[in-house]
Amino acid sequence: MENISKNKSFGGWHKQYSHVSSVLNCEMRFAIYLPPAANEKPVPVLYWLSGLTCTDENFMQKAGAFRKAAELGIAIVAPDTSPRGDDVADDEGYDLGKGAGFYLNATQAPWDKHYRMYDYIVKELPELVEQTFPVTQQRAIAGHSMGGHGAITIGLKNPERYSSISAFSPICHPVKAPWGQKAFSAYLGAGEQALWAEYDSCELIRQTVNQASDRLNIRVDQGEDDDFLQQQLMPEALEQAAKEADYPVEVHRHKGYDHSYYFISSFIDDHLEFHARFL
Amino acid sequence: MENISKNKSFGGWHKQYSHVSSVLNCEMRFAIYLPPAANEKPVPVLYWLSGLTCTDENFMQKAGAFRKAAELGIAIVAPDTSPRGDDVADDEGYDLGKGAGFYLNATQAPWDKHYRMYDYIVKELPELVEQTFPVTQQRAIAGHSMGGHGAITIGLKNPERYSSISAFSPICHPVKAPWGQKAFSAYLGAGEQALWAEYDSCELIRQTVNQASDRLNIRVDQGEDDDFLQQQLMPEALEQAAKEADYPVEVHRHKGYDHSYYFISSFIDDHLEFHARFL
Repeated sequence: MENISKNKSFGGWHKQYSHVSSVLNCEMRFAIYLPPAANEKPVPVLYWLSGLTCTDENFMQKAGAFRKAAELGIAIVAPDTSPRGDDVADDEGYDLGKGAGFYLNATQAPWDKHYRMYDYIVKELPELVEQTFPVTQQRAIAGHSMGGHGAITIGLKNPERYSSISAFSPICHPVKAPWGQKAFSAYLGAGEQALWAEYDSCELIRQTVNQASDRLNIRVDQGEDDDFLQQQLMPEALEQAAKEADYPVEVHRHKGYDHSYYFISSFIDDHLEFHARFL
Repeated sequence: MENISKNKSFGGWHKQYSHVSSVLNCEMRFAIYLPPAANEKPVPVLYWLSGLTCTDENFMQKAGAFRKAAELGIAIVAPDTSPRGDDVADDEGYDLGKGAGFYLNATQAPWDKHYRMYDYIVKELPELVEQTFPVTQQRAIAGHSMGGHGAITIGLKNPERYSSISAFSPICHPVKAPWGQKAFSAYLGAGEQALWAEYDSCELIRQTVNQASDRLNIRVDQGEDDDFLQQQLMPEALEQAAKEADYPVEVHRHKGYDHSYYFISSFIDDHLEFHARFL
């Protein structure tokens, strides 16, 4: 693993690293923010999954999260959004291929050679982070848009590994959304409805209906002037599924806010405080 | 003037505008953050001048300033850093031409046709802002690096127009710094030392020695691990000039911090609170 940048911020450190991922079969970059408290003792980690077209940098540069993370003593890890490199399959669209890994394990060629972001986020990256940095094994998971989909699905499928889940503007029901349908058709196969359901937050919440334990609290924030709200995001489907399964999901709607980091930065403190309650 | 984007943030609005500048003789873009208080009554304005290569976007996306600006009821205006457009003179270097206007009025061809950022910042832009938005004529000025140079020189030359000045990592003594010498030679002429002195913070502070009134408080923050500190920024020259002129400059040095927005975001709240004391 190679350190490729470091910047002091709010008394802690933002650092970028590159490493060879055996799961993704390519070189990857991620960023970590270590709060000042990490100088004294291991701290818990919030994993932030970004949206379409993003890298590790968008959240770290634009979310304004370090002030509160420093105050609460929480580290933040921001991975990239797909495998990278010249030999990694890609598509002309911004919503498939590089920058659009959808946090799943692809089963279809040519994507199955590299696109295993689910395993990378759930296993390989936390192992690397926990071996390398002064962090505990307490983890929370959050994300935006495609990354909100990733955070909710990964959290629901691995409740023993995380303490809480949050999302801004998540793609709540990708099996019914154009972004999700395009990506799942390519990565998982056009007719594979059962496999698609394993990566759909609404379907996964419905599957928890008979589980008494291992229910993580979920917080969602959604701007009401988000251009993608109706067609792509569908928070009402998530609320309906949560109601049917009696699952603890809180959805906060915000008048006038859009899909951008100007929205995320306005409420990121609330998300960090939400996670701090469970860490 | 045309509104080209708007995003709600911290209860207020970030908006980008394009307009034809008669001073710069080209189309320009700027951004404004209007805090929620602007819905009730006119608010004061902090003008933020960015550094080399920047546009109106860097500060607005990366500084994390809106939370505190919303709390204090201060608008922020971020202009571009040079004239723009296909017919505007440019240079291959990042430190001359587009993105590097140095907040002065050029006297040398081919630069004198468009490069009049001093007049744009001091006169044209505030007039436009004050005619258009719910703001008062109370103004503060701040900036980073080249923009820190701009903020200090413009504030010193126009004490009746601003209430306070602040800067992160400013180019304090451009007549002695490679960036300044390159830019001033091109824009103002290689032998024009008297003209250069009119755009040098240290020289301008020395000229205030016999002025009893109209002395604006200046706050400077400087990272000690800034790669440009010794050769380009020279805060010690500013401190020496301030000492000689008994001028109120406070320089805060920060161990481990660099030249980036990760540094700026860590202390931008302190700058906003500093300006709020004088507005």
